[in-house]
Amino acid sequence: MAYNCLVLGASGFIGMNLIEALQKAGACVHGFDRSEKPAIFGDDIAWTIGDFSSNEDVDSAVSGKDVVFHLISTSVPSTAQADRVLDVQRNLIPSIALMDACVKHNVKKLTFISSGGTVYGLDVAVPTPEDAATNPISAYGATKLAIEKYMGMYSAVYGLSTAIVRLSNPYGRHQTSKNNQGAIRVFMDKMLAGEPISIWGAGDVVRDYIYIDDVSDALIKISETEKLHAIYNVGTGRGHDLLQVIAELEKVMDTPARINYLPKRPVDVPTNVLDISKAKREIGWVPRVSLRSGLETMYEWVRVNK
Amino acid sequence: MAYNCLVLGASGFIGMNLIEALQKAGACVHGFDRSEKPAIFGDDIAWTIGDFSSNEDVDSAVSGKDVVFHLISTSVPSTAQADRVLDVQRNLIPSIALMDACVKHNVKKLTFISSGGTVYGLDVAVPTPEDAATNPISAYGATKLAIEKYMGMYSAVYGLSTAIVRLSNPYGRHQTSKNNQGAIRVFMDKMLAGEPISIWGAGDVVRDYIYIDDVSDALIKISETEKLHAIYNVGTGRGHDLLQVIAELEKVMDTPARINYLPKRPVDVPTNVLDISKAKREIGWVPRVSLRSGLETMYEWVRVNK
Repeated sequence: MAYNCLVLGASGFIGMNLIEALQKAGACVHGFDRSEKPAIFGDDIAWTIGDFSSNEDVDSAVSGKDVVFHLISTSVPSTAQADRVLDVQRNLIPSIALMDACVKHNVKKLTFISSGGTVYGLDVAVPTPEDAATNPISAYGATKLAIEKYMGMYSAVYGLSTAIVRLSNPYGRHQTSKNNQGAIRVFMDKMLAGEPISIWGAGDVVRDYIYIDDVSDALIKISETEKLHAIYNVGTGRGHDLLQVIAELEKVMDTPARINYLPKRPVDVPTNVLDISKAKREIGWVPRVSLRSGLETMYEWVRVNK
Repeated sequence: MAYNCLVLGASGFIGMNLIEALQKAGACVHGFDRSEKPAIFGDDIAWTIGDFSSNEDVDSAVSGKDVVFHLISTSVPSTAQADRVLDVQRNLIPSIALMDACVKHNVKKLTFISSGGTVYGLDVAVPTPEDAATNPISAYGATKLAIEKYMGMYSAVYGLSTAIVRLSNPYGRHQTSKNNQGAIRVFMDKMLAGEPISIWGAGDVVRDYIYIDDVSDALIKISETEKLHAIYNVGTGRGHDLLQVIAELEKVMDTPARINYLPKRPVDVPTNVLDISKAKREIGWVPRVSLRSGLETMYEWVRVNK
C-alpha cells in the first residue's frame, strides 16, 4: 500500500490504531486532529492540528492525498441525543464540506466509519445484513445515516469513490474511558479501581464486540475496493450481552465485578449483531481475534498504560 | 375535522391549496410563511409572518396546535445541489427544531411533505413502493430523506406522531413559475407567451404528475392516521414523459409548443412513478383527476390569474 493517506480523527482510539496499521502496510500517513500528535508517533507521521468544522483546515489537509479515512465523531450517542441540532452542525455539515474537498482534490477513496450499532434500528434480522432497513432510533444513528446517504449522492453525482464501514463495538489498546466511549474500557477501569460498574437496563443488551486490530485490517482492505460506492458491516457476527462481557472480564482480570443497575435507555436497541458475510465474500476480510483473547491483550496494555 | 392546524409554508403552491381544503373540512387554520397572507385569505385564517430558521418564531406558531403540516422547502433540486451545506442548514436543522417544538407543545400529528421523486434514487421497481431502497442521487433528496429519518427517530424516542407524504409532481392552481418550481406551470407560461420550452435531456424523463386537489385530499386523510409513524407515497401511479405532457398541453391550450433541448442533468432520475397502493389500502385515498382534466382546470385558472 503506497498511498498518501489522511486520517481524520487521528488522536482517537481507532485513528491511532489505524495509523499504526497503515504504517506497517507501508503507507505514507498524515494525521488530522484537534489534539496534538500523540507521543507514540514519530517524525514519519505528518500531522495537522485542525478544526473539522473549518473548511480551510480540512481542504488543506485533503490536498495531495489519495485515500482519506473519516473517523471523526464529535459526539457519542448520549451527547448527540442531548443536542440533536448541534450533532448535525458538528458532524453532518463538515462531512459534506469534506466530500467537496475530496472531489476538488481528486481523492481516490473516502472511507467513513459509520455506526453498525445505530443505523439499523429495530425490527431487523439478527445478525443484520447491510441491506436491512435503516430506521435509526437515536440522533447519533440518524446523523451517521445522513452522512452515508450524502456519500452515496457524491458517488452518483460527482464520481467520488466512497466506502462506508458500519462498525459494531470496537475495543482494544488506545481505547480510553473518557466520554464513556466504549463499555469495555470503562468496565476495566472501574474493576481495576474496585468501583462498581454502572449499566443501563438488566445487562441483557447484546452487542457485537470486535477487537481493534481486526477493525484496522478491515478499514485498510475496504479502502482498497474498486467499487464506486460500497457499504460493509464490520463486526464479528457474534453477540455477547453485557453480563457475559463482565463475566469474561472477571476471568481475564481475575477480580470480581460489582454492578450498579440503572434504568434502561430508550435509544439503545436491545440487540445488535452484524452479518459480516458481505465483507468476507467481497473483500476477503475475516475477524481473527476472539473476545477472550482480545480482552487479554487489551488488559495487558491497560495495566501498563492506565 | 375540528382541529387547530398550523400550515408551515402557507403562501406556497401546496400551502394555499391545503388551507382552502382544510377550511372546507371545517378546520381552524393558522398559516406560517415568510410572506404576507395572500389576499385570497380572509380574517378567518390566522397568520404569522415568520422565519423557519428562528426557533422562537416556530415555537410560538406551534404552541396550541393539534396538527402541523410542514410544507417548507427553502430549495428546489437545482439550488439544493448548488449549495449542499446551505440546504442542510436551511432545511434539516430547522426541521429538527420544529420536531422539538412539536414534542414540547404536545402536537398530535406532524405531517411532512417529502419528495417521492428524489428519495428513492436509481435501481428501484417502477412504480416504486414505500419500502424500496432510498439512495438519493441529489442533495434535495438526501436532505428530505434525512428529515424523514429524524422524524422516525422522534416517533421512536419521544413519541411524536409523524406522517410522511412522499409526493410526486403536483400541478394545478396557485402554482407559479418562480424558481422553476413545477414544469407544467413553466411550460404553460412559456406557451402562452409564444416562447420555447427548455427541457433537460431528450424529453423522455418520466414523472408522475398529480393534480393538487388530490394532494390536499391525501394530506388531510394522512394527517388523520392513528399510526405513530407512517410513510405514504402520494402520486397517481401513472407516468408521463415530458413530450407526452407537452402534447397534452398543446391540445388543452390549442397552441403548438416549441422545444429547446438542453443537456441531461445527472441529478434527474430517468423515471419516477409511485406505487400508491399503500395509501389506497390503509387510508382509503384515491387520486380522482386525470392529467387531461387537471390540465384543463389549471389552464382555466392560469388564463384568469396569469
